[in-house]
Amino acid sequence: MTDPAPAAAPPAGEAPSKNALKKAQKEKEKAEKKAAAKARELELRQKQQAAASEDTSKDSYGELPLTGSKEFKPTNAARIDLEDIKKQEDKEITFRCWVENARPQGAKLAFLVLRQGLSTVQAVVAAGETISKQMVKFAQNLSTESTLVVTGTVKRAPEPVKGATIKDFEVHITKLFVEAKADVLPLQVDDAERPLPVEGAGEEEKASDGRPLVGLNTRLNNRTLDLRAKINHAIFVIKGGVCALFQEFLGQKGFTLVQTPKILGAASEGGANVFELNYFGKPAYLAQSPQFYKQMLICSRFQKVMEIGPVFRAENSNTARHLTEFTGLDLEMEFSEHYHEVMRVLEDLMLFIFRELNARYKKETDLVRSVYNVEDFKLPSSGNVPRIPFTEGIAMLRAAGEQLGDYDDLTTPQEKLLGKLVLEKYGSDFYVLDQFPLAIRPAYTMPSPHDPKLSNSYDMFMRGQEICSGAQRIHDAELLAEMMRKHDPPIDPNGAGTKDYVDSFRYGAPPHGGAGFGLERVVQFWLGLPNIRMCSLFPRDPQRVVP
Amino acid sequence: MTDPAPAAAPPAGEAPSKNALKKAQKEKEKAEKKAAAKARELELRQKQQAAASEDTSKDSYGELPLTGSKEFKPTNAARIDLEDIKKQEDKEITFRCWVENARPQGAKLAFLVLRQGLSTVQAVVAAGETISKQMVKFAQNLSTESTLVVTGTVKRAPEPVKGATIKDFEVHITKLFVEAKADVLPLQVDDAERPLPVEGAGEEEKASDGRPLVGLNTRLNNRTLDLRAKINHAIFVIKGGVCALFQEFLGQKGFTLVQTPKILGAASEGGANVFELNYFGKPAYLAQSPQFYKQMLICSRFQKVMEIGPVFRAENSNTARHLTEFTGLDLEMEFSEHYHEVMRVLEDLMLFIFRELNARYKKETDLVRSVYNVEDFKLPSSGNVPRIPFTEGIAMLRAAGEQLGDYDDLTTPQEKLLGKLVLEKYGSDFYVLDQFPLAIRPAYTMPSPHDPKLSNSYDMFMRGQEICSGAQRIHDAELLAEMMRKHDPPIDPNGAGTKDYVDSFRYGAPPHGGAGFGLERVVQFWLGLPNIRMCSLFPRDPQRVVP
Repeated sequence: MTDPAPAAAPPAGEAPSKNALKKAQKEKEKAEKKAAAKARELELRQKQQAAASEDTSKDSYGELPLTGSKEFKPTNAARIDLEDIKKQEDKEITFRCWVENARPQGAKLAFLVLRQGLSTVQAVVAAGETISKQMVKFAQNLSTESTLVVTGTVKRAPEPVKGATIKDFEVHITKLFVEAKADVLPLQVDDAERPLPVEGAGEEEKASDGRPLVGLNTRLNNRTLDLRAKINHAIFVIKGGVCALFQEFLGQKGFTLVQTPKILGAASEGGANVFELNYFGKPAYLAQSPQFYKQMLICSRFQKVMEIGPVFRAENSNTARHLTEFTGLDLEMEFSEHYHEVMRVLEDLMLFIFRELNARYKKETDLVRSVYNVEDFKLPSSGNVPRIPFTEGIAMLRAAGEQLGDYDDLTTPQEKLLGKLVLEKYGSDFYVLDQFPLAIRPAYTMPSPHDPKLSNSYDMFMRGQEICSGAQRIHDAELLAEMMRKHDPPIDPNGAGTKDYVDSFRYGAPPHGGAGFGLERVVQFWLGLPNIRMCSLFPRDPQRVVP
Repeated sequence: MTDPAPAAAPPAGEAPSKNALKKAQKEKEKAEKKAAAKARELELRQKQQAAASEDTSKDSYGELPLTGSKEFKPTNAARIDLEDIKKQEDKEITFRCWVENARPQGAKLAFLVLRQGLSTVQAVVAAGETISKQMVKFAQNLSTESTLVVTGTVKRAPEPVKGATIKDFEVHITKLFVEAKADVLPLQVDDAERPLPVEGAGEEEKASDGRPLVGLNTRLNNRTLDLRAKINHAIFVIKGGVCALFQEFLGQKGFTLVQTPKILGAASEGGANVFELNYFGKPAYLAQSPQFYKQMLICSRFQKVMEIGPVFRAENSNTARHLTEFTGLDLEMEFSEHYHEVMRVLEDLMLFIFRELNARYKKETDLVRSVYNVEDFKLPSSGNVPRIPFTEGIAMLRAAGEQLGDYDDLTTPQEKLLGKLVLEKYGSDFYVLDQFPLAIRPAYTMPSPHDPKLSNSYDMFMRGQEICSGAQRIHDAELLAEMMRKHDPPIDPNGAGTKDYVDSFRYGAPPHGGAGFGLERVVQFWLGLPNIRMCSLFPRDPQRVVP
């Protein structure tokens, strides 16, 4: 059977049956129909081709094939950063961007707002000698968020452009290619630019302009679209900036950047609030902080160490300032005589970060704060960070009508109130509370030499909310073991997760102290944002581990 | 009973019994003995006091009380960094240090080697007008690794000092206080300075000088002491330096530093080799890489992102170059036309890191390499990193006698051999292998436009060992889903860990590529170290989760 007969033909040597004849007839009709369809298709294609040949700009727009890196044409130099558009007046430029919106104005004009990074520019596609009506139509129908490669001439705008960040210039498009087309969006990026509804008001709350405000859950469920919003770009540029500034300041002071393990063989800092995992059939735990390890490195004579890394807390706290996974900015250092040497480094570090955020990330800071009408972050004009003894903090709160004991921990509302009182008294949104009660601090905290019920420990606050906890640590193994046994609840200094730690202080450990900052909180309170989840790219809380 | 009678006195109104008399007699003898002991003790104390009053330097040495931060005396300015000792000739300085060793020379002289950071200095305590014999004895008996605060005069050494890193100067001690005394050491830091025994030779292998070499397990079990060795300080200063250089180079190129989640709701990159944890009663997983998330950030228009963070692999590999927790140096970026734009950034990044390591961390690099007799790391003199197509690599190996198929993955010995061949041919310890077979790469790898069995992917090698894997990624959701289904083993593009990822490419994703480096490997092969565990402060492998 090298040359099979058509299926409809009767088998050789047999008379055709009635059924077979009917079948043949049907097949014939089918074939005729097919031929007619083909003819129509051909005619249509010819018409289209004719139309296309009339399309004077048919090579200047369209959808590009998938970029598969077939040819390397080193034309990058020609690609322009929109931030530099001022230098390009009257020049033709090429740049990648995405469609913020596209709107028609009659058949001969399309207005586009094109975005790249935090910049948006108005672009015009106007029918004329080199631009066909087809091309204008193509531009008018571009789907929001599609990725483009655009070529055009930079022109001074006749009047300041509304609705784009670049006010003085616009682009007169000559070429317009879609690199990647966007499907229908489950979340409008424009909605993600607007503030969250106020907590408790539900997803239905509307803004003053009558448009609905999209709730946090909807945003987080569509996080990769949500993150496209300029406000979110700004938040995470600032967050990366805080990390860079942290390292810049401490690096200059001789701190070594370290990585301590996140998987621990035993739950070292108490068994509560720790995630357990299966480590080759045995239980292991996620680090709740780098505390023990950064101190062990001080015992290893590293003198000054810093770490930026994830911190895991299996705490069932569903608040606007708790995450189950956050980024810890940690440091630990030797000091010579007094733990206030460490506190001074911490204060100077934060002042440096705040000042440089104002200097280097002003655009991003202003952008975010403007959406939430947040006031500037006030730094003490004297340059001295208010350093308030815990007992004085208590006194200030009592004077303001709060009732609390000398050694009570502050509640969150009390912390916020104290923040207000400090701001009134010292004119600073940043301050330190020093000499906390010993009983409410971890067992490794050095007791105060002045009052055994207090300790050489401190918290730092931004806008009345805690961002940092720190202390002088006990550097003597015997005292440490004693304080662990006396702690409530007691900790076994010979336990699986504690023995190596306690023993590390037996071989000549220097006096030292340190602190851990919650990076997301620093960003949240710098910007005055209502929810810490906004400061984590893909936040984790007791209810959320996706996306 | 306000004035209780002595226990031995007979009860009032009762005649003393024989037994009671015996008892009273015994008590009397006891009391006399006690009195005599007390008299002797008093005499001894007086003698000691007399001796002490003869001790002309009794206020110049001794053990300090625990530093509890009682008083703040801002005397830090007076504390000297030993690195700056050259500027202090003939001056009296005070510094913190620890005892590397102490040895007597007769009753009137003690020689100390004192360490601070990577520096050691010889110090002399010589009996004389202001230094008592008691003080010399105290110095002679200092326990190794104790922490001291030393005051002394910097003097030019009469001849170059052997056995200290500072050769031209020594310190003539005037005050000597122990801040923290070291117990007996379970591991000598001096032993930790020496090389590991060669693998397989066991813990008993001896060095050429006959002293035993301490094995890795013993070192890691006593890691906080082990880490005190100068070689280990140098390794981790370099490791921190690589992180800083990575961020410096990419930061200047506009990369945003990000933190992606380490806890995932589903095992996204395949179910094997993933650690499972208990997340509030539900299963969750530790990220095996930031791959999906850094790509999702490209979809969120971040354009260029970098991350330094822990990576978790539940891989039961007990080799000298695998860890279950390591530090990933990751980046992902858009490109314009060809993924070689990304490769160029990666090559320039690594050349920058290597050159700056040579410039800024030469002392540390030389220190470590000298212990293991490691050759310098050779960079291509042309400045062009050898970029070798996979097929050419195969051809080179075949020419060298290896038998392997066109699309076979390389074994570790083959990788090492290829490294040697490339070094011979191109004079470089660093090179890139490009266009790997598609079948041995992840499903999200862009196929090659030139050969569907190849892919736009690459690995980077140092001294013939892989340090980095990267590729152009598929940025089209449909193609990505198709390649996932076709993958061996197939991946469900609608799975719990994949759907969000695949969907993120539906809204106009730009062409992009990136790479992930293993930080510990970069450090290991830069220094030519025999085991990757040496490059992790507290290494984790299938056998070890402590300390």
